[in-house]
Amino acid sequence: MAKAIRGGETCAIARTTDVLRDPWTFLILREAFGGVTRFSDLRANLGVASDVLTQRLDSLVSAQVLRREQYREAGSRTRSSYHLTEAGAELKIAVAALQQWGDAHLPVECGPTVARRHRSTGVPLEVAFVDPDGRRVDLVDADFERTAAYPT
Amino acid sequence: MAKAIRGGETCAIARTTDVLRDPWTFLILREAFGGVTRFSDLRANLGVASDVLTQRLDSLVSAQVLRREQYREAGSRTRSSYHLTEAGAELKIAVAALQQWGDAHLPVECGPTVARRHRSTGVPLEVAFVDPDGRRVDLVDADFERTAAYPT
Repeated sequence: MAKAIRGGETCAIARTTDVLRDPWTFLILREAFGGVTRFSDLRANLGVASDVLTQRLDSLVSAQVLRREQYREAGSRTRSSYHLTEAGAELKIAVAALQQWGDAHLPVECGPTVARRHRSTGVPLEVAFVDPDGRRVDLVDADFERTAAYPT
Repeated sequence: MAKAIRGGETCAIARTTDVLRDPWTFLILREAFGGVTRFSDLRANLGVASDVLTQRLDSLVSAQVLRREQYREAGSRTRSSYHLTEAGAELKIAVAALQQWGDAHLPVECGPTVARRHRSTGVPLEVAFVDPDGRRVDLVDADFERTAAYPT
């Protein structure tokens, strides 16, 4: 097991899934990618208990995926809103890649619940490997190479 | 909770992470993406007990991510090897996206253990949103849109 534990610590995949592990986390991120920021809107959209939502939001703030801000509307008390950090925004790629695979290979009868589209042109987007010139690279040309840091 | 459960069933992300949930699964896939196919090589590379490896491989075969084949070398008994299906090969994008985010936002001191490179040119590859013409799309232009199948 020593190797496995060491593999887990150095494995970037394991570190990312640690952040994403909880099903609520995915649902919160899906809302955040859709532009929802207010605690009250998240609670209403997800049908989740306040204490559960608070706990998951705290954990995403700790992971520096979300940033907490305060806002106040006239005549109301101060409330919290949650905004994607740069790291949080980049998580969109990983979440979209997971969605895309599930839609393609574990489809459900009702079809995909979320589509990924270009904000201004509306064309469907995919997640794929790209080269430094921003051109799509075929899957067969994408290699995983071990670095010197790979556990031996 | 009814909403949450419904969200889980229709959520492609949840269905994909169900396949990827186990840490061994990631490690096995990382080996498979690196071209390792034989049970004996997987066992040696991962330092995993045979029964654990057998169970995880069975589960990846059931999920149609790996395909089991038999091979036989002269003077030896028949043995099993495991090959990525088309779905398994496409999982490379999701796994690379998780790795890329972990490397960027949860770095470890020793640096990334795996690099993603173009098989023939060796240039570093990224996972990103691409449009139907195969051109990289900025993160800020990638929208998640709810479809009619989104649970209400």
